[in-house]
Amino acid sequence: MNFRKILAATILLTSTATPLMAQGDPAEDALNYRLGVFRTMAWSFGPMVAMVKNKMPYDAALFTQHAERVAFLSHLPLEGFIPDSRIGETTSKPEVWTDRATFESQMDSMITEAEKLFEVSKAGSIDAIRPQFGALGKSCKTCHDDFRTE
Amino acid sequence: MNFRKILAATILLTSTATPLMAQGDPAEDALNYRLGVFRTMAWSFGPMVAMVKNKMPYDAALFTQHAERVAFLSHLPLEGFIPDSRIGETTSKPEVWTDRATFESQMDSMITEAEKLFEVSKAGSIDAIRPQFGALGKSCKTCHDDFRTE
Repeated sequence: MNFRKILAATILLTSTATPLMAQGDPAEDALNYRLGVFRTMAWSFGPMVAMVKNKMPYDAALFTQHAERVAFLSHLPLEGFIPDSRIGETTSKPEVWTDRATFESQMDSMITEAEKLFEVSKAGSIDAIRPQFGALGKSCKTCHDDFRTE
Repeated sequence: MNFRKILAATILLTSTATPLMAQGDPAEDALNYRLGVFRTMAWSFGPMVAMVKNKMPYDAALFTQHAERVAFLSHLPLEGFIPDSRIGETTSKPEVWTDRATFESQMDSMITEAEKLFEVSKAGSIDAIRPQFGALGKSCKTCHDDFRTE
């Protein structure tokens, strides 16, 4: 990923126009990025889980809003798993890098299931949502079991 | 934000279907969420800054992809600034909560400028992008100056 090297050099020139820039170490930037994506997703899972479990009233617009966010975000984390970024507070297993084909296949499954959930959610039926929400949750769990430490 | 309370209760019931769930403390969840959003945005600023500064070759599709992400993400952070969440590693000033109208107005400016950048980027001209990228950067800086500690 050559642009990351270019980016690292660029960050040294950070101006006031780029106050949100990363820290300059490519591995740290990548870790912060992918953790950021997952934490952003986690927020959206909150109300969706609550609605699926009848812990809060089903609000079709709210559910769809969060399903759209998760579908959008599902495309993002993979590029943060750059070489030599199993550092710091990561919970990634070495297999993220040593069994890349399986890892990428499972990330693709997340994208597929998240996009399906967004589509299903548009119909406004919590009963139709539940099995697809379960399918997305299963894709999360499968990948965590295989590629994430506890 | 009543659904946060419901969410907090729900999290206690977290099942294997929800492995990415938040930690259960609403303020901590909100902090992790908004930091997550900003860190996800920061990643996209990397290649955009590099292209704007001629530190990497302009790639119209790549720029637009990141501009779209930032536009999408710009709508997200505000809801993470819930009451009583000036905690932990936050860099939020008290004014986020005591001068809410100004804060929300500046968040709106970010959204407006980020959406404009995405639109401008579709035309595929780095020269057209530069001033709008500057406008977005200015909206970031204004809010950071007023509402974020160093």
